[in-house]
Amino acid sequence: MNRRDPEGAIAEAARKYSNWGRWGADDVLGTLNFLDEAKRREAVALGRRGVSFSLSQRFDMNGPQNGWGRRTNPIHTMLMTGSDASLGNQGSPHGIGGADDMITMPLQCSTQWDGLGHVFDHGKAWNGRDAALTVTSEGDLVTGIEHMAPHAAGRGVLLDVGRVVGTEGELPDGFAITEEHLDATAEAHRVSVGRGDIVLVRTGQLTRVRREGWGGYAGGPAPGLSFTTAGWLHRTEIAAIATDTWGFEVRPNEFEHAFQPLHQVAIPHMGLLIGEMWDLDALAADCAADGVYDFWLTAAPLPITGAVGSPVNPIAVK
Amino acid sequence: MNRRDPEGAIAEAARKYSNWGRWGADDVLGTLNFLDEAKRREAVALGRRGVSFSLSQRFDMNGPQNGWGRRTNPIHTMLMTGSDASLGNQGSPHGIGGADDMITMPLQCSTQWDGLGHVFDHGKAWNGRDAALTVTSEGDLVTGIEHMAPHAAGRGVLLDVGRVVGTEGELPDGFAITEEHLDATAEAHRVSVGRGDIVLVRTGQLTRVRREGWGGYAGGPAPGLSFTTAGWLHRTEIAAIATDTWGFEVRPNEFEHAFQPLHQVAIPHMGLLIGEMWDLDALAADCAADGVYDFWLTAAPLPITGAVGSPVNPIAVK
Amino acid sequence: MNRRDPEGAIAEAARKYSNWGRWGADDVLGTLNFLDEAKRREAVALGRRGVSFSLSQRFDMNGPQNGWGRRTNPIHTMLMTGSDASLGNQGSPHGIGGADDMITMPLQCSTQWDGLGHVFDHGKAWNGRDAALTVTSEGDLVTGIEHMAPHAAGRGVLLDVGRVVGTEGELPDGFAITEEHLDATAEAHRVSVGRGDIVLVRTGQLTRVRREGWGGYAGGPAPGLSFTTAGWLHRTEIAAIATDTWGFEVRPNEFEHAFQPLHQVAIPHMGLLIGEMWDLDALAADCAADGVYDFWLTAAPLPITGAVGSPVNPIAVK
Amino acid sequence: MNRRDPEGAIAEAARKYSNWGRWGADDVLGTLNFLDEAKRREAVALGRRGVSFSLSQRFDMNGPQNGWGRRTNPIHTMLMTGSDASLGNQGSPHGIGGADDMITMPLQCSTQWDGLGHVFDHGKAWNGRDAALTVTSEGDLVTGIEHMAPHAAGRGVLLDVGRVVGTEGELPDGFAITEEHLDATAEAHRVSVGRGDIVLVRTGQLTRVRREGWGGYAGGPAPGLSFTTAGWLHRTEIAAIATDTWGFEVRPNEFEHAFQPLHQVAIPHMGLLIGEMWDLDALAADCAADGVYDFWLTAAPLPITGAVGSPVNPIAVK
Repeated sequence: MNRRDPEGAIAEAARKYSNWGRWGADDVLGTLNFLDEAKRREAVALGRRGVSFSLSQRFDMNGPQNGWGRRTNPIHTMLMTGSDASLGNQGSPHGIGGADDMITMPLQCSTQWDGLGHVFDHGKAWNGRDAALTVTSEGDLVTGIEHMAPHAAGRGVLLDVGRVVGTEGELPDGFAITEEHLDATAEAHRVSVGRGDIVLVRTGQLTRVRREGWGGYAGGPAPGLSFTTAGWLHRTEIAAIATDTWGFEVRPNEFEHAFQPLHQVAIPHMGLLIGEMWDLDALAADCAADGVYDFWLTAAPLPITGAVGSPVNPIAVK
Repeated sequence: MNRRDPEGAIAEAARKYSNWGRWGADDVLGTLNFLDEAKRREAVALGRRGVSFSLSQRFDMNGPQNGWGRRTNPIHTMLMTGSDASLGNQGSPHGIGGADDMITMPLQCSTQWDGLGHVFDHGKAWNGRDAALTVTSEGDLVTGIEHMAPHAAGRGVLLDVGRVVGTEGELPDGFAITEEHLDATAEAHRVSVGRGDIVLVRTGQLTRVRREGWGGYAGGPAPGLSFTTAGWLHRTEIAAIATDTWGFEVRPNEFEHAFQPLHQVAIPHMGLLIGEMWDLDALAADCAADGVYDFWLTAAPLPITGAVGSPVNPIAVK
Repeated sequence: MNRRDPEGAIAEAARKYSNWGRWGADDVLGTLNFLDEAKRREAVALGRRGVSFSLSQRFDMNGPQNGWGRRTNPIHTMLMTGSDASLGNQGSPHGIGGADDMITMPLQCSTQWDGLGHVFDHGKAWNGRDAALTVTSEGDLVTGIEHMAPHAAGRGVLLDVGRVVGTEGELPDGFAITEEHLDATAEAHRVSVGRGDIVLVRTGQLTRVRREGWGGYAGGPAPGLSFTTAGWLHRTEIAAIATDTWGFEVRPNEFEHAFQPLHQVAIPHMGLLIGEMWDLDALAADCAADGVYDFWLTAAPLPITGAVGSPVNPIAVK
Repeated sequence: MNRRDPEGAIAEAARKYSNWGRWGADDVLGTLNFLDEAKRREAVALGRRGVSFSLSQRFDMNGPQNGWGRRTNPIHTMLMTGSDASLGNQGSPHGIGGADDMITMPLQCSTQWDGLGHVFDHGKAWNGRDAALTVTSEGDLVTGIEHMAPHAAGRGVLLDVGRVVGTEGELPDGFAITEEHLDATAEAHRVSVGRGDIVLVRTGQLTRVRREGWGGYAGGPAPGLSFTTAGWLHRTEIAAIATDTWGFEVRPNEFEHAFQPLHQVAIPHMGLLIGEMWDLDALAADCAADGVYDFWLTAAPLPITGAVGSPVNPIAVK
């Protein structure tokens, strides 16, 4: 990898690892196509103990966002309250009272899926579409996340790279996770990764910022996948991948003056579904305890019409 | 049931079907406590075919809300677009472009769970707490929906009352579904309902308004559960119940001048988790086709801190 | 005017009435440049009686918007309430309590100014700028309404065309107000219109919809300025114009298949500041009573950085 | 003033300086009643030179808010853009294109008026009303800021205490401005303050934070009015007062463990209209240059129904 030629490296990876046309010209699912019924049938059997884990951070004003890219933390407000109900301010009959609420939030503010319309390469969106016609100010007119509504349920595999490769369960910021690290982790866990899997990569950064404060969690330095894993992401035919970091790939990026080059290959060219800011700690502790690193995973985006991302509360069942 | 004495009937049902204290003074889960690991272990085996269904309506401005209770439809806006990316307006290096978006919505605007802080009876919230201290303008300080994050995954049972009792799959507005209707439907489906189940009751109203226009779907007349089912809801020890209607119970309500009396018993007294505006049509068609009415269901609320409800994309796997 | 050739008519008017370059290449004020200190000095003397009028509709959920162009009515929610203060829920010392609130609204939802970045002609914004580089998803990067913050204070002139030309003070929907109507009204009012004035044209439509319901007030048929008034708007060198209707110009538009052709000339080519949905009724009644149709007017937009419009509460003082 | 007895001092000031009942039981205007037509008639003559000044900060994400009290900075998003117009994505005929936008903001986020429903004392709102019945989660049902829509236009008087009393035009944080400072400043300016005036007090803090960064501007230490000015505020019969600081009164407050005690007297007991975060610098420079410290001032709140505050762009004309 020539660190002085990001444009060339991105173009080469885009060419080698493209899935354009693989599922037809009209495809709106990308690598979620790998997660078929047969795969799902096998996966559901992994819920052996009936224990469930939420992999979502909480959505509130104490989140990591700092205004980068106009991303703010969620604002939750009440339309009706128990206070007013108790005081008789609601005018409802026979003692019934109610509370209602609303939220304003960027869809990229916390635990989320990136939709296929989230990143482009030289004006091209997933499957070779023209980005300018696909994602306008009216939203993603073609590959909105609503199309993924029923699909993101299958076999989850945790690769706890932080635990296997890191120190005290954590990788340092700027640590680039390579294919070798991923393979070594899978081997240490005695777990396989393959077609249709949803792979969860724990770096330990979330554990660290929880202890030390958000700092630059949103947009700053972080451990994450190396640009060089593009081939692995393509070859394994996984359905999706998620990390416990803001941006999935290593930060600072490995090229001079680059910005999220692995996204630039993975989303528009591979059609890979990417999850970010997942909270993998409780699940990881359980996997370490019982030595079982695969499970049934449901991570259903809200079908917001035309959205290029969605908050999600992923549920792993072991 | 004395239609002239809603206050008396509600008080009596509240007394008879209360679960206050059943799971300790600090409980924040209500009937979700019935959904334990053993139950979940059995349920996951129901995903036999690997087919998944989203039970969520789409979230967009074309939804049913009309301003009732200041509930509006979701407003989805873009922070960055493919248009700007294509025009080179984003200033990112090497051809990468991006799109981001945000949403403003009432948490009760479409497919949702009602949290335990959503309804009160005479100033009392779930488990006997003081509503005025529990749900303030800062949110639900005690029973916020974030506490339910990992729990709502278990056995789903569809009771397609519209199909069994109705005409061409639909019950008319104002139709009160009784215990007898629920039992007859379960019997017709050859399916049991019991402790820890998540019961989905299809009335067919959503099918009808999709065909005919929203009309009064949000707040107007609707088929739904009779107030008299309170005992059934309590006795069966189900973990949760959801319908394809705005308000779960029959509208107009069965008492003169009442407002959602079954909510008034079910939420604050039973601690019952209630889902509304679920889209059960695709699942129901499949159940009718294969005759199997139970399945693995994951309906994970977004863990919005202090929320009294949450949008949800429930995923059923058969 | 050839009703079959809107494109030709627009192009001709754009050419004839263009102010591009008139105030230099960097101009961000358009016709507000006509409202200079000398003009303002004369105007302030018009506040003879010390009576003030608000020309703003109220901002709330009972407004005219119906979702057209994703425009909704304002959503006002409370962050803190008197209810919670009274109950002691706020934890403030010595008996102090507080209430706070927030708003979510399109800037075009009610009484407003259109900024110079609100309308384009064939990709050109005010002063000949490239619309694609001027107003992106980050806002109006050049002519944002914040630049107008101190300027919109000067002589206001009411032309109550509804009263002079209409029936019982109201013009019917679809009525095109021509130059002749404007001149006749000014003459009837014994008032002049000239350089730097802010002209308020009352059609009476708001009076009617207040009586009869919003109906199509937002986007539907309405009385308004004829496309043929473009020359008058240019020649009079007024600083701004506002009406009591949603869209300033007559609706349906006078060409077949056109959409707001007068806007297309007036905003990008003339740089004319346009106000819409102003409530002129109380002021008009007073003007009819005392026969004085000019006054001191302050209509200060909120300096929202990069905004292409702003809600405004215009204050007329006679 | 006994710094150890805030409750007693507040109670005493509340009793001495109360205006309850002064304008009748139904009053919703408080001290704005002092600003009558006669006063306004005199004031308008102050616009001698025709120069106008905006006293508003810009509304954008670069504002001072830091989450205190769930107050955030404004979020401005686009519904339509010039980018999309240029690309032909809008589907409008004959080359017309458009841009629209929206805003989400706390009404207390930047330059603003506090409404009469903004602060309470021991559960009492302005004029002795029950706060719990006046400001609920539905808004201020009685004294909403919409009632003030036409009134806040009159004589403005700048008291540049920073310039007269401070060092290089600025008072240090924690500096309590007393009656003596106000009088000395007025004397230095050769300007009088009296019934119906809108008094603007410049501390210079905004100048400082502009130079040094927001720091604790929102809620932290600041110069401001001493609690002891309550009598002056009452005796002078001013209509309103505004400062260039977040909170009008000195911070930290002068009592141990108090929170905004002067608000607690001024809003619910006097009915005083208070403005905060006004940008007085350009106006102050002009006043220093020409020695004229009074002017015509229009500071019209947006008539948001039920609001306890409003953003405002005040316009001073000299």
